Amino acid sequence: MIATLKFTALLLAVVVCRATQDYGYKDVEEPTLGDSQYGSLWPLPQKVQMSTVAFKLSGVSFQIVDAKESSSGASCSLLQNAYRRYDEYIFPISRMQGQNKKKAFASVSELQVWITSADSECDNYPSVTSDESCECPGMMFVFLVGALSLETFSQLVYEDEYGAKSINRTEIQDFPRFTHRGLLLDSSRHFLPIKVILANLEAMAWNKFNVFHWHIVDDPSFPYMSRTFPQLSQQGAYHPYTHVYTPSDVKMIIEFARLRGIRVVSEFDTPGHTQSWGKGQKDLLTPCYSGASPSGSFGPVNPILNTTYDFMAMFFKEVSTVFPDAYIHLGGDEVDFSCWKSNPDIQKFMAQQGFGTDYSKLESFYIQRCVASVRHGLKVKQMISNSLKADTLIHVWKGNQQQYQAEMARVTASGYQALLSTPWYLNRISYGQDWQAAYKADPQDFNGTDAQKKLVVGGEACLWGEYVDATNLTPRLWPRASAVGERLWSDKDVKDTNDAYSRLIQHRCRMVQRGIPAEPLFTGYCAHEYKGV
Amino acid sequence: MIATLKFTALLLAVVVCRATQDYGYKDVEEPTLGDSQYGSLWPLPQKVQMSTVAFKLSGVSFQIVDAKESSSGASCSLLQNAYRRYDEYIFPISRMQGQNKKKAFASVSELQVWITSADSECDNYPSVTSDESCECPGMMFVFLVGALSLETFSQLVYEDEYGAKSINRTEIQDFPRFTHRGLLLDSSRHFLPIKVILANLEAMAWNKFNVFHWHIVDDPSFPYMSRTFPQLSQQGAYHPYTHVYTPSDVKMIIEFARLRGIRVVSEFDTPGHTQSWGKGQKDLLTPCYSGASPSGSFGPVNPILNTTYDFMAMFFKEVSTVFPDAYIHLGGDEVDFSCWKSNPDIQKFMAQQGFGTDYSKLESFYIQRCVASVRHGLKVKQMISNSLKADTLIHVWKGNQQQYQAEMARVTASGYQALLSTPWYLNRISYGQDWQAAYKADPQDFNGTDAQKKLVVGGEACLWGEYVDATNLTPRLWPRASAVGERLWSDKDVKDTNDAYSRLIQHRCRMVQRGIPAEPLFTGYCAHEYKGV
Repeated sequence: MIATLKFTALLLAVVVCRATQDYGYKDVEEPTLGDSQYGSLWPLPQKVQMSTVAFKLSGVSFQIVDAKESSSGASCSLLQNAYRRYDEYIFPISRMQGQNKKKAFASVSELQVWITSADSECDNYPSVTSDESCECPGMMFVFLVGALSLETFSQLVYEDEYGAKSINRTEIQDFPRFTHRGLLLDSSRHFLPIKVILANLEAMAWNKFNVFHWHIVDDPSFPYMSRTFPQLSQQGAYHPYTHVYTPSDVKMIIEFARLRGIRVVSEFDTPGHTQSWGKGQKDLLTPCYSGASPSGSFGPVNPILNTTYDFMAMFFKEVSTVFPDAYIHLGGDEVDFSCWKSNPDIQKFMAQQGFGTDYSKLESFYIQRCVASVRHGLKVKQMISNSLKADTLIHVWKGNQQQYQAEMARVTASGYQALLSTPWYLNRISYGQDWQAAYKADPQDFNGTDAQKKLVVGGEACLWGEYVDATNLTPRLWPRASAVGERLWSDKDVKDTNDAYSRLIQHRCRMVQRGIPAEPLFTGYCAHEYKGV
Repeated sequence: MIATLKFTALLLAVVVCRATQDYGYKDVEEPTLGDSQYGSLWPLPQKVQMSTVAFKLSGVSFQIVDAKESSSGASCSLLQNAYRRYDEYIFPISRMQGQNKKKAFASVSELQVWITSADSECDNYPSVTSDESCECPGMMFVFLVGALSLETFSQLVYEDEYGAKSINRTEIQDFPRFTHRGLLLDSSRHFLPIKVILANLEAMAWNKFNVFHWHIVDDPSFPYMSRTFPQLSQQGAYHPYTHVYTPSDVKMIIEFARLRGIRVVSEFDTPGHTQSWGKGQKDLLTPCYSGASPSGSFGPVNPILNTTYDFMAMFFKEVSTVFPDAYIHLGGDEVDFSCWKSNPDIQKFMAQQGFGTDYSKLESFYIQRCVASVRHGLKVKQMISNSLKADTLIHVWKGNQQQYQAEMARVTASGYQALLSTPWYLNRISYGQDWQAAYKADPQDFNGTDAQKKLVVGGEACLWGEYVDATNLTPRLWPRASAVGERLWSDKDVKDTNDAYSRLIQHRCRMVQRGIPAEPLFTGYCAHEYKGV
């Protein structure tokens, strides 16, 4: 699929071999699609025309292959990797051996993947400019026409009660509504083992998310192992060996994501949320005072020392080489001014700079100088922040509905690009079907001009880490995050909750069958239940 | 442990071998117990006196053995099974081989288990009269004195940063506050695979629960495979092969529970909540009417046909042989009268019986006749119900706090034994540390005399199945159910939430280390994190 495979244009053609005879009790049938006319498709493509003409997929002979005309093929490991993955999704039980080429039914024998772009992104990283739309210039042996992603193709395949796979003749045109469809995971409040992150990247791809926002460090722990400042994780991680991400761990995660069309945007939040940084980096944090003497505790990053900015420049230079994405997320979240206020050196500095007692000016001072230092080190990187307003993308994640809508209006009215998270704090749980509230929120739902709306680049579902770790993260996230996935991919008019419910139940069972413990939406069952505990 | 091992009296004696030399940098140390003076004990025993004198447990030579004086030993597989289990919990990594008998530290080389009762329950099922208290008549080579369960013993063992195990000299006397400490799982709304049930029985034993209330069938599905009426699951299960409990599955679950001192109380709720029964048993349910003709849908069990009671007698006769426990739970929950009201035959019957329009009289009629039939078939069984008031135990599980307290007062004032569940509906989730609310509820907290309070036999945590299945059940249940476990085991004055929090964090990490994905209580980490996804 385009979203996953990241080529500027992709055509999937299916070679159909017509049945020559019929021996039986099971003929080409009406598909069993449940209540939605769109079967189990999730997120819903922009245009779908599904017919009732069904074709069988043979477990013996069906294969995903490069079309002859394709500009990319056997040498593209990204593509070959995806073929293997989707072959396994469609035929999860080991493929039958044999040469039984005699077909009993009208059946599909090949899915031809036709890459039409000369400039494939086989070896590159996905970027914010990757074209995820799908155009279909024509057809050849094509019964499934239109541009289809492999994921979408796999979602069209359904199983009868005998386990036989079929697919209906379907026309699809597809492209995402928003370019930034993110998911935030927090590996600081609880350490997330590599395999938890990989499993969730897998599920992200199935839901057409394309940005993994890795909130990698925060107050409680610093699991990022820095080559330049190894003491940061040595002292700041929960454990220096078992609770860290080594450079090769990070590399593996980025590559795993790349193969699925997912960007990895790292967040290193400063100047607040940095308690864990202070353990391994002397003088980085502001010493708090109790009266006239230091209290022994520390506050935000110390904004008045040159060493702070030297450190940030070096640190972010490393980060920019480790994380290939063009964006770095700088956080800028929730700075508590009380420690700064208590510190006499900070007070003196405030007076010198003429900031009076407005500590938000000191915060801005820090951010601007930090960005200047960081930018100097890494040249091309772009920033995401929730406070910094320069050429950055503004991430809106605070407030209630009224407040975030006002903030989206304000940010875009000022000409900044915006990214919404407020309605999608999936760490906040409640009893019952809370996916519906996430599904109903819309990032363009605020008072503004068309030009303002166009500045909305997307959103992010967030799963902050206070109450989740390897034991419960995955079922808590899926299929609730799927609701956000569809909101960010599908047309803005796709908002029929009943239709979504019918598709989501099936999509959830598909995730379960593929090995992800996505929790149930309500009473019921899946044909293939989760096998773990 | 008594709660697990089910002997009328048990003594654990520990043979200590004193260190003769010391070669090193690590001597006998103060234990690291966190903030609670009770370390990681959960639920808290009735009396604990923990000293700072620590002894090492050698991974080479430590063993759990039968004391010479024990009335039960090698021939008791229940006991040997428990030894093996707890040896693995204490030394989860494969035991070191070798004969290094030279001790460097004061160390414990044996845990002697001394059964003092002549009548051990090695081959019997635990029952409501099993004595779970622990008396310690004397001591021999005893540094850990007092009666200790194996579980409690294992909770006293702690690990230093080098992985070495130690235990402090500790005196414990223990017995449960309530005899009925139950957990309800619902295998009808979602099918629960055997291994999910077994894993949760395991965790129940660690938390000293002793009753598994198996809400096995309900409206949505009938997974219980009946030998007498195989059509019930054939037609009423979600799937007749993959979503059923065969007789041998049930047997295995009961045996697994027995080895852990857990009773299995089955619930077959009638006359409501029986939609799934109707699929495989013709004429069992009441046909609902729309005007003068049947609507095609069905209501509760049909109370006016003799065949209904014949069926119930035969069905429960089977149930009573399959489930050895003396109690059967009859449900009697939430009967909707609208279908009965619509049916002209029922109306006629109401008139004949002189019930007027009071359908609760019809419900009572059904329940009494049903119980009479059931009792006739199975002679000795006792009943649990939330509506039936005879010699039964009344299960209170509806209403808000005020309502359930009033109901507990009413039930006990009428002289019935009572069982509380209302505050422990663990399926109801909310954001944050909701274990605390469960912890604060107390089943004897209502207006009543001492005699009334004595009629409270305990309570049950309930995890109704609308939103849980194999994907999310276990982390949603643990450690939230642990809060109920302590409330039902420990003294009523054990209610310091801070102390509980400190112990529960450690208890939770212990469950995780033993392989149960118990979810985190808050930001932090375990030395041994969950390995699955």
